[in-house]
Amino acid sequence: MESLDFVPSNLNNFGPNCDSKTISHTTSYCVKRKKKKGMGTITAPWKQLLLNALESNSHLKHSSYFQLATVGCNGRPSNRTLVFRGFQESSDKFHINTDNRTHKIEELKHCPFAEICWYFTDSWEQFRINGRVDVIDGSNPDTFKLQQREKSWFASSVKSRLQYLGPNPGLPRISEHQSEEEDRLDPSIGPVAAFCLLVLDPDQVDYLNLKNNERVKFISTLDMNGVKNWTSERINP
Amino acid sequence: MESLDFVPSNLNNFGPNCDSKTISHTTSYCVKRKKKKGMGTITAPWKQLLLNALESNSHLKHSSYFQLATVGCNGRPSNRTLVFRGFQESSDKFHINTDNRTHKIEELKHCPFAEICWYFTDSWEQFRINGRVDVIDGSNPDTFKLQQREKSWFASSVKSRLQYLGPNPGLPRISEHQSEEEDRLDPSIGPVAAFCLLVLDPDQVDYLNLKNNERVKFISTLDMNGVKNWTSERINP
Repeated sequence: MESLDFVPSNLNNFGPNCDSKTISHTTSYCVKRKKKKGMGTITAPWKQLLLNALESNSHLKHSSYFQLATVGCNGRPSNRTLVFRGFQESSDKFHINTDNRTHKIEELKHCPFAEICWYFTDSWEQFRINGRVDVIDGSNPDTFKLQQREKSWFASSVKSRLQYLGPNPGLPRISEHQSEEEDRLDPSIGPVAAFCLLVLDPDQVDYLNLKNNERVKFISTLDMNGVKNWTSERINP
Repeated sequence: MESLDFVPSNLNNFGPNCDSKTISHTTSYCVKRKKKKGMGTITAPWKQLLLNALESNSHLKHSSYFQLATVGCNGRPSNRTLVFRGFQESSDKFHINTDNRTHKIEELKHCPFAEICWYFTDSWEQFRINGRVDVIDGSNPDTFKLQQREKSWFASSVKSRLQYLGPNPGLPRISEHQSEEEDRLDPSIGPVAAFCLLVLDPDQVDYLNLKNNERVKFISTLDMNGVKNWTSERINP
């Protein structure tokens, strides 16, 4: 991870958004769509498993860290640790903050797919979450997305925000200390140019529990109305 | 990870193979080649940093787990947790055990490059290790490689070996319990068909220390004799 992705902020949107029992022990079945009261949203069947894992590992600082794999412009895989910043409201989309000047931005513009590998060290659970990533920087024409980016900026600590004023990540290090300008930031000022919100929209989740040797694969398809339907299947670990 | 990759074995070949001070604080420089007494091998400058991280995090069971990213046959990235099984003797090549029936084998045959992301949760260090992977199964024509595979098999616990006799990982789960045959394995019997050794030969390492905010990039080139030379440079975190 770049250190700038790494200062923890409030992990917003963590509330238990779904109450469905998620794992069936039949071999294969279609997951019922669950509507939240008055929200009209559909709960992904793996989401409660992930919320449970976050809860049971919450005493560990690193429980919100995962590894995000992308494909580099040279066709090679690329992999780094990043911080989970919460779900987009009423959805199963993952928020990640990053610096617009890092290689992953270029990589995601070249190939928009990514896979999160999230291993919970206390509960011995692994989630592999594959999906498409939307890169939202200040030039985005969509007002809702810009609002999401701004919200994510203000949800970060001021210390975290300061790092987006630092020198270009990955370039040769020239100075030892940051300038005075970089030490100060008006907390009321909105996102700076380098601040970028990544939104990962998952379409496949592979869940593995090493304590009971369970593995479940969740796959989504879009129905005629463009609504995501999840199916799940127990597979051999 | 597939659980079969996951039963810890002896982490062999861990001895301090190099005694060089690895990080220079000049902006960019060539790393001196270090020869081990009587071995003629060259020590990669990042290796001691990694051995130090393994040592300082050794009280954590998960300190030998990392995430390996590959490129799927559909061009999307793929990412899973695996266990470090040690370095190949007198080299900087990483050993990983896996099941020949997993997707990663097909993926690596399609694109032989991978990136390890290894985050040490106690020392706050991250290593991103990019290189080419050699897939060594029982059909390999190279005697030395077959010996390496056999050595890795016997270095695994019998419990770990047993899992290679289980049902095909990733396929729909049919039976709840393994057969009696799968419960027994003669400890003197060599590697079964499904057992596969992966050897990752790194050519680029990105090291980040979040406690002191240091980041160093190590890049290798091959000289005229095919010998790997490492250069390193401090970069912005």
